[in-house]
Amino acid sequence: MTERYTPTPEDKFSFGLWTVGWQGRDPFGDATRRALDPAESVQRLAELGAYAVTFHDDDLIPFGSSDAERESHIKRFRQALDTTGLVVEMATTNLFTHPVFKDGGFTANDRDIRRYALRKTIRNIDLAAELGAKVYVAWGGREGAESGAAKDVRLALDRMKEAFDLLGDYVTEKGYDLKFAIEPKPNEPRGDILLPTVGHALAFIERLDRPELFGVNPEVGHEQMAGLNFPHAIAQALWSGKLFHIDLNGQNGIKYDQDLRFGAGDLRAAFWLVDLLETAGWDGARHFDFKPPRTEDFHGVWASAAGCMRNYLILKERAAAFRADPQVQEALRAARLDELALPTAADGLAGLLGDAGAYEEFDVEAAAARGMAFEHLDQLAMDHLLGAR
Amino acid sequence: MTERYTPTPEDKFSFGLWTVGWQGRDPFGDATRRALDPAESVQRLAELGAYAVTFHDDDLIPFGSSDAERESHIKRFRQALDTTGLVVEMATTNLFTHPVFKDGGFTANDRDIRRYALRKTIRNIDLAAELGAKVYVAWGGREGAESGAAKDVRLALDRMKEAFDLLGDYVTEKGYDLKFAIEPKPNEPRGDILLPTVGHALAFIERLDRPELFGVNPEVGHEQMAGLNFPHAIAQALWSGKLFHIDLNGQNGIKYDQDLRFGAGDLRAAFWLVDLLETAGWDGARHFDFKPPRTEDFHGVWASAAGCMRNYLILKERAAAFRADPQVQEALRAARLDELALPTAADGLAGLLGDAGAYEEFDVEAAAARGMAFEHLDQLAMDHLLGAR
Amino acid sequence: MTERYTPTPEDKFSFGLWTVGWQGRDPFGDATRRALDPAESVQRLAELGAYAVTFHDDDLIPFGSSDAERESHIKRFRQALDTTGLVVEMATTNLFTHPVFKDGGFTANDRDIRRYALRKTIRNIDLAAELGAKVYVAWGGREGAESGAAKDVRLALDRMKEAFDLLGDYVTEKGYDLKFAIEPKPNEPRGDILLPTVGHALAFIERLDRPELFGVNPEVGHEQMAGLNFPHAIAQALWSGKLFHIDLNGQNGIKYDQDLRFGAGDLRAAFWLVDLLETAGWDGARHFDFKPPRTEDFHGVWASAAGCMRNYLILKERAAAFRADPQVQEALRAARLDELALPTAADGLAGLLGDAGAYEEFDVEAAAARGMAFEHLDQLAMDHLLGAR
Amino acid sequence: MTERYTPTPEDKFSFGLWTVGWQGRDPFGDATRRALDPAESVQRLAELGAYAVTFHDDDLIPFGSSDAERESHIKRFRQALDTTGLVVEMATTNLFTHPVFKDGGFTANDRDIRRYALRKTIRNIDLAAELGAKVYVAWGGREGAESGAAKDVRLALDRMKEAFDLLGDYVTEKGYDLKFAIEPKPNEPRGDILLPTVGHALAFIERLDRPELFGVNPEVGHEQMAGLNFPHAIAQALWSGKLFHIDLNGQNGIKYDQDLRFGAGDLRAAFWLVDLLETAGWDGARHFDFKPPRTEDFHGVWASAAGCMRNYLILKERAAAFRADPQVQEALRAARLDELALPTAADGLAGLLGDAGAYEEFDVEAAAARGMAFEHLDQLAMDHLLGAR
Repeated sequence: MTERYTPTPEDKFSFGLWTVGWQGRDPFGDATRRALDPAESVQRLAELGAYAVTFHDDDLIPFGSSDAERESHIKRFRQALDTTGLVVEMATTNLFTHPVFKDGGFTANDRDIRRYALRKTIRNIDLAAELGAKVYVAWGGREGAESGAAKDVRLALDRMKEAFDLLGDYVTEKGYDLKFAIEPKPNEPRGDILLPTVGHALAFIERLDRPELFGVNPEVGHEQMAGLNFPHAIAQALWSGKLFHIDLNGQNGIKYDQDLRFGAGDLRAAFWLVDLLETAGWDGARHFDFKPPRTEDFHGVWASAAGCMRNYLILKERAAAFRADPQVQEALRAARLDELALPTAADGLAGLLGDAGAYEEFDVEAAAARGMAFEHLDQLAMDHLLGAR
Repeated sequence: MTERYTPTPEDKFSFGLWTVGWQGRDPFGDATRRALDPAESVQRLAELGAYAVTFHDDDLIPFGSSDAERESHIKRFRQALDTTGLVVEMATTNLFTHPVFKDGGFTANDRDIRRYALRKTIRNIDLAAELGAKVYVAWGGREGAESGAAKDVRLALDRMKEAFDLLGDYVTEKGYDLKFAIEPKPNEPRGDILLPTVGHALAFIERLDRPELFGVNPEVGHEQMAGLNFPHAIAQALWSGKLFHIDLNGQNGIKYDQDLRFGAGDLRAAFWLVDLLETAGWDGARHFDFKPPRTEDFHGVWASAAGCMRNYLILKERAAAFRADPQVQEALRAARLDELALPTAADGLAGLLGDAGAYEEFDVEAAAARGMAFEHLDQLAMDHLLGAR
Repeated sequence: MTERYTPTPEDKFSFGLWTVGWQGRDPFGDATRRALDPAESVQRLAELGAYAVTFHDDDLIPFGSSDAERESHIKRFRQALDTTGLVVEMATTNLFTHPVFKDGGFTANDRDIRRYALRKTIRNIDLAAELGAKVYVAWGGREGAESGAAKDVRLALDRMKEAFDLLGDYVTEKGYDLKFAIEPKPNEPRGDILLPTVGHALAFIERLDRPELFGVNPEVGHEQMAGLNFPHAIAQALWSGKLFHIDLNGQNGIKYDQDLRFGAGDLRAAFWLVDLLETAGWDGARHFDFKPPRTEDFHGVWASAAGCMRNYLILKERAAAFRADPQVQEALRAARLDELALPTAADGLAGLLGDAGAYEEFDVEAAAARGMAFEHLDQLAMDHLLGAR
Repeated sequence: MTERYTPTPEDKFSFGLWTVGWQGRDPFGDATRRALDPAESVQRLAELGAYAVTFHDDDLIPFGSSDAERESHIKRFRQALDTTGLVVEMATTNLFTHPVFKDGGFTANDRDIRRYALRKTIRNIDLAAELGAKVYVAWGGREGAESGAAKDVRLALDRMKEAFDLLGDYVTEKGYDLKFAIEPKPNEPRGDILLPTVGHALAFIERLDRPELFGVNPEVGHEQMAGLNFPHAIAQALWSGKLFHIDLNGQNGIKYDQDLRFGAGDLRAAFWLVDLLETAGWDGARHFDFKPPRTEDFHGVWASAAGCMRNYLILKERAAAFRADPQVQEALRAARLDELALPTAADGLAGLLGDAGAYEEFDVEAAAARGMAFEHLDQLAMDHLLGAR
């Protein structure tokens, strides 16, 4: 394979421990791979060119570990980080695997489970801060319902707000340099999950006590499970100043959560996503949240992880070539993207209202007849994506 | 049919002129019905028990009418309103039918088209205010794209914000008692539409200059086209204080926009929606935005309109019976809905952190073993919905 | 609850052991319920009014059991059947849980795994015949792929045909009174599954050596995961003489496989399904393939199972009332359903070609103007479904 | 643009007159382009390198034309064909645009409309044969329903069979060298369409009187509107000997019918499709059934048409390179695609049953531990698709 697609830490590629460590259990099948030691994952990811790892508390410290076991796991993990130079850029809480969370964590109907969920989260926030993470992700995968009366959504949102407000207070009191990124998902494992899309999460954040501490962690496949345009969602998150983290992977349309390697699934959306992140100067991690298919042994696992990074780098190269191509720049002007950048009414309301050319004398039919030249522009993008220019 | 499902104006049922007036043109077929005179629609809807009508500018005044024709159309419409007692509760702008809007209105790449769209909107806002509407809906059905480079979404959101800020200024300057309700839709007629869901629209509103003037107008089928739970979306809109209007209809899952009569499509979602609106004390219009199938002649059109109202009334009765049933109330307690209403940490962060029962001594396995009793509860709901209790 | 919805064995309700026995493992969570002893399931289902149970080999005899253990499990199961009077109407093979089947059974790329899958199936066919099952279901949930080159679909269909031809030979040689029912599913657990819909399975059957031995086992949720109309699929299967078995459950649209209890999910589709089965005189089992949500304890499990049967009975009552209602019969005539039953050209090709009234003198505009009266008819159905007439 | 992607008639690219001629009417908007003269379309398509055109009767001869007008339209069209050397490879009937077909053609509830539809079809079959078409496509876009009682599907399939049997008789009697290709679609413009997928159509064909005359005309976007894998559908059609024609275009997942140019939408599916068609030696037309977006003027229309062909040629080149690459061939062997080509039981049932290695002595765990190496293989495909090797 070509040298120019070899990742280095400068590319800021990051992997969840749970990704390469996924054992392949699915709704219809048992594990196909042994558990991976986090230290081994760190070592292998470093060799492949990654820059960081991320973790759920239970990825690092098996649920129910004693304090001594906990310290031992953390120590071993730290050593692996030190040896390899990998950093922890993000951490998160597992509030979904254990049966106690079957009706949710922060919005479980049972109050004592909500309290337990908060305490479990706070404990891992301490560890996250200690390990230097700057982002704390919250995926409320169990916050939802399968039937209509099982969850009073307005009350559940009250509880969700209460939880995040408390966590905001906590990191503020502690002085942690840590922001939260809420990860939306429409469904699975619950029939319907609260805050199902990037939009719903962005809206929710505005009702928190400390909105400045909260942003989103959109995942490619999650928006695509609702048939939504992922680059559009990222654009709105960026526009809102709220893209705090991102989960890159692949998904083939509206179906179960596939967590394919980045680049698999909707390739054109992946291209436009990389184009957007690079154009917007995104300087956070390129974090992969994928699952190597359970057909694979560990050779396949590492091939899949390497593929995520390679595909990002190929698409980055192609997007850059697209933007640099003079014919593309001309096509963008022909499609009047430059006009979209102009204020509609720099002359203000009065100016607009007084401008007969804007309405009374506007030649509607002539304006309607102008072609937008989008097909030519999109074919240029296709050519660049395919390396066919 | 049973008398108790006969609508009256007190039920606040409202219809768009474009609904019963839809002629049945679809992507593969020509009109199957003649145009309806708005005055005739008003008359027939009044007879059926409606309370209000709503309109796009072009529904009332054909695009391109002269000022004199315009006045004549408005006069005729007013007379029909006066005769029947129907009111106008909402109005909106058609920024999608004419080819000039093929790339959008407020976010068209062409600046002059954006200006024209604003002026067209302002003109109809004047009429809306004059006719007594309290809500002005904005459906940006053409604000979107089919291909990645055709629209810079961040710039488009700048233009969208600029447009709504200007409109907010306008109604403020004019002193109109009029609020805006943004209507989200994921796709169709554009490949992807900006502000695709209730969540995205709610989030966008928070970045406007006068957010207090803006809320949402969710449509049943639009959220369902993204596979989202509509009652959940309404619950979040209510929770955010932003449900300003609602469009009731039916949709059979993720496919083209069907605009079936209310009650058709996902019946259980319709039940939970009515339950939510009535429980929450929604006092706005129950506004139907549906299309009588093009298989129907005018008998079918009016049967379809009557069915929308009838179904709402049946579901309202069933939801009320569900909430009043002592067995349901017991089942809700068994499912700990009462506990969801309790603050998780009324004792504050310190209390929570100091409570060993919340974590160190919490019996996780015992908590995990508790059943949620949701299936029993949902079967009770099903029984009530089906009138089988 | 009303007595008239109490199931009896005459209703022919059947349950898979794996349904009430599902422990609640999902892609993101561990088991929430203990394993159920099959004898206990048989006992409880009998008490609830069921008529039959069905099983995968591994439901009854844990994978890897010795011959002695196997006999003991079977004996215990037989005793429960004898005690309760329940019968086994169908059996099937688990070719998906063990990691050896990660790339499929009959179409695994590895030949030895294909041979093993066939032998595992044959072994359970012997047991099925011994226990009196008349239908043997084949769900090839792992026959598929996540990526394009991983499976040559034409070769895989050759292997699938080879497997079913061998099985057809086997039951013929043995003289078993057993037919096969192929169960289609579009995806999950594989990215794409072969024979994804009822249609694909029906077509495949026609290329087998003994097509008369093969039919389909459609599952409500599986077709709905592809957004297809389930009653339409059943109608085509019946029309083709190929409905050999059916899996009843619920699904909320296009998303992961939910396996909700029957009646949950798309209620109108459930109504039309029951109407079709009863109208068509379906005399096979009403077999439920559902999963009580993992939020439930065993009270919930049995409530969920009872709900499946109750909902079927309610819908059966409503469908019968719909068909018996004179107003409905009149509405069906108004919608010209009686004309659909007439041959289009009983006069043959020559008659049709010679009939000027059919074309040259046909009044197209008059025919186009006739309304179909479908909305009135559908509202009558809605009224009956809701018990509102 | 690179010379090597310039189409020639040898590439067998074909276009429907209705594709480049689409005026841009959609459910929410009026036409954005003038009507195109068929002769002009033929001329322009020839210049772009196409080999053939196809048509609906109404594309060529406006509905309601007199016999004289009809002859004149046909003559003009023939002249354009003669001048350019383009051929007509397929024709079809418009049974959906005129309101008379609002409830279908061959399965309309009204018998006289069914007769009219048959006569309209027969008339155009004569023209198709006269113009040298070898395939006659039947898309029953209006054969379906929006509500459950409106269509008795079993009766409708009887009528559908009757219609196709009559047409089969007709072409046989006439001695036409013409086969039929049924085009499935799940929905739009009807809520649910009969024969919704390739599978359902294949199955239906087996019940016709002359199945040998009937095959399928799958369309990329139609299968993808049901979330199905298009190359898999084509593989089953080829395996069944029933791929008689194909409609190439693009679609972005499950939503309204987009008819994007080929290559837009799901790019990876397009790659695997071209790979399959070329590997299988498909020698029919590469027929594009797309709609240039209504944002485009005629420059955009022709750019879009050219893009369809260019993208096919790029993908053909990439697929060929993929198959020729020795590393790919090695990866295919590592994934045991060669083993999938081997019969599972060349030794027959007896051999299989007597082979202890197949079951009693089979090392299940060892077999389970083998990795399938699909991720490496798929990354090689990705590299070839992107031209990154």
